[in-house]
Amino acid sequence: MSEQSVKANHRDYNLQSWSKQKGLDPIVMDKAEGIYIWDPSGKRYSDMSSQLVNMNLGHGNRAIIDAIKAQAEKYCYIGPSYGSEPRGELAKLLTSLMPDTFGKILFTNAGADANENAIKIAKQFTGRYKVFSRYRSYHGSSFGAGNLTGEPRRYPLEPGIPGFVKFFDPYIYREPINFESEKAAADYYVAKLREQVIYENPTTIAAIILETVTGSNGVIIPPDGYLQGVRKICDEFGILLIVDEVMMGYGRTGKMFAFENWGIKPDIITFAKGTTCGYIQLGGVAVTKTIAAYFDDNLLSCGLTYSGHPLACAAGLACVNYYIENKILDNVNARGVELKASLNSFKEKHKSVGDVRAIGLMSAVELVKDKKTKEALVPYGKDPQGTMKKVNGELAKRGFMTYTHENMILVAPPLIITADQLKEELAKLDEVLGIVDGMI
Amino acid sequence: MSEQSVKANHRDYNLQSWSKQKGLDPIVMDKAEGIYIWDPSGKRYSDMSSQLVNMNLGHGNRAIIDAIKAQAEKYCYIGPSYGSEPRGELAKLLTSLMPDTFGKILFTNAGADANENAIKIAKQFTGRYKVFSRYRSYHGSSFGAGNLTGEPRRYPLEPGIPGFVKFFDPYIYREPINFESEKAAADYYVAKLREQVIYENPTTIAAIILETVTGSNGVIIPPDGYLQGVRKICDEFGILLIVDEVMMGYGRTGKMFAFENWGIKPDIITFAKGTTCGYIQLGGVAVTKTIAAYFDDNLLSCGLTYSGHPLACAAGLACVNYYIENKILDNVNARGVELKASLNSFKEKHKSVGDVRAIGLMSAVELVKDKKTKEALVPYGKDPQGTMKKVNGELAKRGFMTYTHENMILVAPPLIITADQLKEELAKLDEVLGIVDGMI
Ligand SMILES: Cc1ncc(COP(=O)(O)O)c(C=O)c1O
Ligand SMILES: Cc1ncc(COP(=O)(O)O)c(C=O)c1O
Repeated sequence: MSEQSVKANHRDYNLQSWSKQKGLDPIVMDKAEGIYIWDPSGKRYSDMSSQLVNMNLGHGNRAIIDAIKAQAEKYCYIGPSYGSEPRGELAKLLTSLMPDTFGKILFTNAGADANENAIKIAKQFTGRYKVFSRYRSYHGSSFGAGNLTGEPRRYPLEPGIPGFVKFFDPYIYREPINFESEKAAADYYVAKLREQVIYENPTTIAAIILETVTGSNGVIIPPDGYLQGVRKICDEFGILLIVDEVMMGYGRTGKMFAFENWGIKPDIITFAKGTTCGYIQLGGVAVTKTIAAYFDDNLLSCGLTYSGHPLACAAGLACVNYYIENKILDNVNARGVELKASLNSFKEKHKSVGDVRAIGLMSAVELVKDKKTKEALVPYGKDPQGTMKKVNGELAKRGFMTYTHENMILVAPPLIITADQLKEELAKLDEVLGIVDGMI
Repeated sequence: MSEQSVKANHRDYNLQSWSKQKGLDPIVMDKAEGIYIWDPSGKRYSDMSSQLVNMNLGHGNRAIIDAIKAQAEKYCYIGPSYGSEPRGELAKLLTSLMPDTFGKILFTNAGADANENAIKIAKQFTGRYKVFSRYRSYHGSSFGAGNLTGEPRRYPLEPGIPGFVKFFDPYIYREPINFESEKAAADYYVAKLREQVIYENPTTIAAIILETVTGSNGVIIPPDGYLQGVRKICDEFGILLIVDEVMMGYGRTGKMFAFENWGIKPDIITFAKGTTCGYIQLGGVAVTKTIAAYFDDNLLSCGLTYSGHPLACAAGLACVNYYIENKILDNVNARGVELKASLNSFKEKHKSVGDVRAIGLMSAVELVKDKKTKEALVPYGKDPQGTMKKVNGELAKRGFMTYTHENMILVAPPLIITADQLKEELAKLDEVLGIVDGMI
């Protein structure tokens, strides 16, 4: 099919997410391999945000493809009440990668419905109805997940769900306070949260949910002590701690799950994306043995037609085994050091770079008009001159595909990226940051 | 892997939808073909509810399997902003099967998120915030879809979302009024709805959403004139009419979409299940050209990582083309006549059968203790003696797999069922209804 026809179908018959539909001119997918994709003209693009930070293993992974094909020949689907080998095996494998307190998995289709079900489980288990989540977070776009979300993508869901309460995240770079240490920052944010919990009546709060590391809202990495402190608040008041590992799970931060970086044990883990690298949609909710046991005798009032989809679980099994067998974490940690060093050098070199934040192969470059005042390159929620679009366009021109959020550039390549590939791509970013310097 | 290990994994590591987890003893899937599945011992089961009324084409459909395998070799996933051939082609094909007023498709992963996004679109398009939906309906289990749902599966989501209003459906069999005609019934329910719309302030109502034919809550078929009347109310007050075709779409009722049975044109259609027969998860929202055009210049504030998943869309293309090329509707209509005739004869014959309702290959048998008083076999929302479980058990013993809801048995086989297969299975149902007769 011609490139023009694919573009025409896209424009004429599809509604594209988070977009105005007029004048869409999509890059047409022709083929893909590893960190690269090609359009029909043969132009190569490097996938520097892993397609929405999803394709941790990049494109064309043979193990996953073969697993899908093999399972498709057996059976593609069976309802959640039947016993299915790939579903049971994947649940067992995932549980084995989590803290020993973890017991069971409810599979869903994606990240949003993983969070939806996590909240439902927390409400059922605790008998409480309030849920705390953070501003500058994204948990999905359906009503439950979207009400957890703390940024403009929540707005169309208002009036909001009663009992969904927001608190602020540890966004140290833009905090007016000058913290003496990471510990001081952690203590500050934890104390603020504890105060809010008390003022909201702790006995009504079912759960606190957070992205372990905030992802699309700018790679906000918690100071050491923060997650440990949140864990303590939860213990003090009988609140469940839910970590949303949809974007950070499966090696992105250099650990299998991001919360391991701070040695805490959550009560519920939600996951999606990296479970299958999106080869087939799959998400899920993992719960502790204690929570699982509650549902031995209490009806689990959660369900979806495709829970534990066998073909998706077969893809997940191949994918998660691939991480392990190919020691993907080692590559993340080696490349992560290089990525961080380069970004730090860009911060030194470029006057438009206000802050860089990186953990593993997850990073953000925050653009400012002025390093001292920290004035953002574009005002919050607005981009009247299309400045960030231009920045992204300069990157895309060089075949560096990623996405931006507010005044930030996300850099999160597939976890299989080599040292040479990373170097090649970061040189392009360096060049474009030079252009941004000229714009301010 | 042994049957025992699959069962053990299921029990030890999975949370099963809508269940208490203690003592689960799932049938283990070994192989599947057409309307049949087999467990590892070789016992054959007939799939008389198409796995949650999802697998319209049954198991092992070669065209869908081959399409999945072929697309998997090209690429499995690309983000929603890229042009992808299967996504564009499927959107074009689906739109061509809908009324000529229809324009564009937003793809989702399933039924719940299709409804979530339909409501979001309606709110954005109208600038209004209220949504009407019906009791005795199921629209999914996430917060938005679950708040639309009008039965106990909604309860864990309370306190509910402001502005989600419920009205009653045309459940004629249990209405205390004795309607003179189908038209009289339709007029009654439409007038009641119009009155409620007025009392809720029509200028605040974004949409009325309904299952065209109520599915899992008991196959409630609207009397002729009802949907036309709802359409008129929507036109009168500028309210969007959303039909949830997740269960009824793709031939289930003898038409490609169920609303065609009553000649109406909705504003939004939601779909899932039959789009791919669940071989890979896929759902979506179809909107009119008018609604689509609104988002030319207004941001569509909807999105999900897997929107328009290429592998799922490739499965959908093969599946929907299969319906058309193999004239599946003809089989539904022929078998539908036989099904209805048999069920009607069971109603004559069995004192436990209070009502039967059938359209195409979608049907329910409503069990009562007494035909005259219509007292249900089990009280609403309760089944202290596990009576319905026993009824289902008797069916399963005979290899007739389906599910029950309250006092009803759902019968909704794959649309490819032959006359002989249907006859063979209905004989089992007949036998079990004889047993139920003996229970009352
Ligand atoms: C942290 C986080 N949670 C949840 C989601 C929602 O996942 P999905 O788009 O699969 O619904 C995302 C998606 O980007 C995410 O980054
Ligand atoms: C009419 C209807 N709408 C929506 C849904 C929800 O679909 P899913 O389970 O894919 O979320 C269902 C599921 O049975 C349904 O029957």
